[in-house]
Amino acid sequence: MKKVDVVVVGGSAAGIPVALTVRRQYSEKTVLVVRKEQQVLIPCGIPYIFGTVGSPDKNLIPDMILKKNEIGLLVSEVQSIDLQARVLKTEAEDLQYERLVLATGSTPVRPPIPGVDLDGVFAIEKNVSSLSRIQEKVMIAESVVVIGGGFIGIEFADEIKKSGVKSVTIVECVAHCLSLAYDTAFCVEMEKHLKARGVEIMTGSTVERIDGESSVESVVLSGGTIIPTSVVILGIGASANATLAKAAGLELAPDGSVAVDRNMKTSDPNVFACGDCASKVSFFGGKPSSLKLASIATYEARIAGANVFALKRENIGTVGVWSTAVGDLAMGTAGLTESVARREGYEVVATTVESPNRHPGCMPGAQACRLKLLFERSSGVLLGGQIMGDVAIGEIINTLSACIQKKMNAEDLAMFQTGTHPALTASPIAYPLVNAAELAIMQMK
Amino acid sequence: MKKVDVVVVGGSAAGIPVALTVRRQYSEKTVLVVRKEQQVLIPCGIPYIFGTVGSPDKNLIPDMILKKNEIGLLVSEVQSIDLQARVLKTEAEDLQYERLVLATGSTPVRPPIPGVDLDGVFAIEKNVSSLSRIQEKVMIAESVVVIGGGFIGIEFADEIKKSGVKSVTIVECVAHCLSLAYDTAFCVEMEKHLKARGVEIMTGSTVERIDGESSVESVVLSGGTIIPTSVVILGIGASANATLAKAAGLELAPDGSVAVDRNMKTSDPNVFACGDCASKVSFFGGKPSSLKLASIATYEARIAGANVFALKRENIGTVGVWSTAVGDLAMGTAGLTESVARREGYEVVATTVESPNRHPGCMPGAQACRLKLLFERSSGVLLGGQIMGDVAIGEIINTLSACIQKKMNAEDLAMFQTGTHPALTASPIAYPLVNAAELAIMQMK
Repeated sequence: MKKVDVVVVGGSAAGIPVALTVRRQYSEKTVLVVRKEQQVLIPCGIPYIFGTVGSPDKNLIPDMILKKNEIGLLVSEVQSIDLQARVLKTEAEDLQYERLVLATGSTPVRPPIPGVDLDGVFAIEKNVSSLSRIQEKVMIAESVVVIGGGFIGIEFADEIKKSGVKSVTIVECVAHCLSLAYDTAFCVEMEKHLKARGVEIMTGSTVERIDGESSVESVVLSGGTIIPTSVVILGIGASANATLAKAAGLELAPDGSVAVDRNMKTSDPNVFACGDCASKVSFFGGKPSSLKLASIATYEARIAGANVFALKRENIGTVGVWSTAVGDLAMGTAGLTESVARREGYEVVATTVESPNRHPGCMPGAQACRLKLLFERSSGVLLGGQIMGDVAIGEIINTLSACIQKKMNAEDLAMFQTGTHPALTASPIAYPLVNAAELAIMQMK
Repeated sequence: MKKVDVVVVGGSAAGIPVALTVRRQYSEKTVLVVRKEQQVLIPCGIPYIFGTVGSPDKNLIPDMILKKNEIGLLVSEVQSIDLQARVLKTEAEDLQYERLVLATGSTPVRPPIPGVDLDGVFAIEKNVSSLSRIQEKVMIAESVVVIGGGFIGIEFADEIKKSGVKSVTIVECVAHCLSLAYDTAFCVEMEKHLKARGVEIMTGSTVERIDGESSVESVVLSGGTIIPTSVVILGIGASANATLAKAAGLELAPDGSVAVDRNMKTSDPNVFACGDCASKVSFFGGKPSSLKLASIATYEARIAGANVFALKRENIGTVGVWSTAVGDLAMGTAGLTESVARREGYEVVATTVESPNRHPGCMPGAQACRLKLLFERSSGVLLGGQIMGDVAIGEIINTLSACIQKKMNAEDLAMFQTGTHPALTASPIAYPLVNAAELAIMQMK
């Protein structure tokens, strides 16, 4: 039986960085990635296959990164794990491991809606063949309905609209799209923007059933509205792939994910898990978190990979930092929204500032930028921020993430030394992070 | 005599935020800005007047911000300060102040080169009429020489080239342009980029003299090279405007700036100073710093303004965070460069990573991004970072700034929870800050 020091199951946003981290931290150890897919898709790039990028083949993670770092690759389906014997059985061969890391990802949820199994109703599986099939169907569709107005839903809807489909409708059960990550004022702006780009949005609407003979013909909403369509995309979340772990006898979390501690260790001391398949807790209060993002997966992978032979790193919990972009409007969020923070019981001070992202405002690329910051009232500690504007907001949320992780308060942000440039950022007088913090300080007095 | 609680002298990048901060912190106090200019230019926008923006009138700080915040404005030249009587004499009237804040800025250096006073040799004064005059001359010039290859020099050179001048030459005395803020590999990239855009660069070259009858006809370098030209722009730094402070008897720093402590207080407890006119120390070791930037001015202004009636804020010293942009190449820096750090005596670990700023790399706007991070070897503390890439690097250096100010180490950066998006940032697997930190950790073992 082949012996490998560290076997990683899964080769995407968690599997690759976990293998790289093991390589960096334990240079003498052998590392093998086992995955079932011939080719691995860049998960966050999937919506862009439909319009901007053009095909799944252009959205692949190259295997070169493994080879360059002397990480083995076995493309095969894993059948079972024997925790006692430390043996991983795959279709191709059995592997004797010292340490095992599960990075098996998640599967999109198929809700129990009548008609969900009709032909033409698609969940977004992360594999090339399934996506190619969806793309073929979308290309000839006159109408597409996207169920779910989270970031995956809106990105899919916009890209499909961009690809030329006449009618694209998002159906979202709560009052606004993106409301898990943004407060209402931000959600409304994105909805306006999507509508201006030709995407129809039906919020506060539940899908009653999907109708059709063998393939989908219409979506029926609870109010009775019927939307004729030949394609339905499900964008309502994902659940952890934990079948293998469960069968092996590893503990699962109440949400069905592989239970891990702050070191990303499972109930078996030789087995770690990270990414979508692993249980998560929030940075804020430590309660379970259901957020599944590639960036979180890589973070957890850097912890798991470092810990396999000696506990070196600890997960401080998921801050929740991510962004979305539709055309030239980008929106980003880090930490808690005001509505979530209040629901959790925080007493908060929220401030919103608007300023152009260039100075003077007639510089090319100038666009309004709106930032909302949220502070805990008594301590002044930053709890979260939401921002909309141009491409640079993708990095502004990372500044916010650093500030949140280091528990900076409003005074720290007001005293933040920023770099600014006419062609790249807001003016130093109008720099949004600093000004939103200054306004918060006034309100905290 | 008119009584005002807080008088601010100067109405630019230091004066405006100091007035705003006083308003925010001490809402009951009267605040008056006294400035000599009818109109105030956005300082960092000045190079862009020549090409991108088109005229000085489009690069003004609006006075509305003062009015909106109930801050008075007096346009008049200050003649003297009586520290004992707390009276500021201006051409228009005398003012009785409780607290005075000097935000008088700086004046570009005119080096003692023979011929520097010829017609057509311009230092960049921050006023509309002087800049209009320069612009008129540049518009009809066949050749322009820019003395100094710092960020002001290169931005001027590129904008003047863009405006249609046939020959534009930067003369820089040291081996590379931008070498105060970047290590050589980065400087070389910007030089290549400038050359590709038609700007000529003569580094390691000193100007011997400027020749001409009454107006400039040529610039003669120490090696004997003669560059025929009708316009010379001086971009070699600025010195603090401290004449008023000196005449009043305030202490000056050895470099001639107004001496201030960490609270931005001058030698008179009722007088504060901030921005280009005030003395500065480095965040690294506390030695004097000569860096003069609008963003530093606003930072110091937020300290000075908060402290006028009660000491609330302290200057931790200048981190040095700034960026520049030429065409589609942006470069940013935060903290120390490797060469400066080594000269200062730090034992450092430096790592450089390259990755595209989008994922997959075929997303629109994809461009290579290069990041260099610098850590103190024994502690792992981040000392600095340099980055080149697209517009978003203007904000990535702000993330670095937060990390530097909070003395984060390589492990903190490796454990940084980033947000990423295909259309906005590098992939989470290739996120440069994290990967550069991981590489540094390997080297520190």
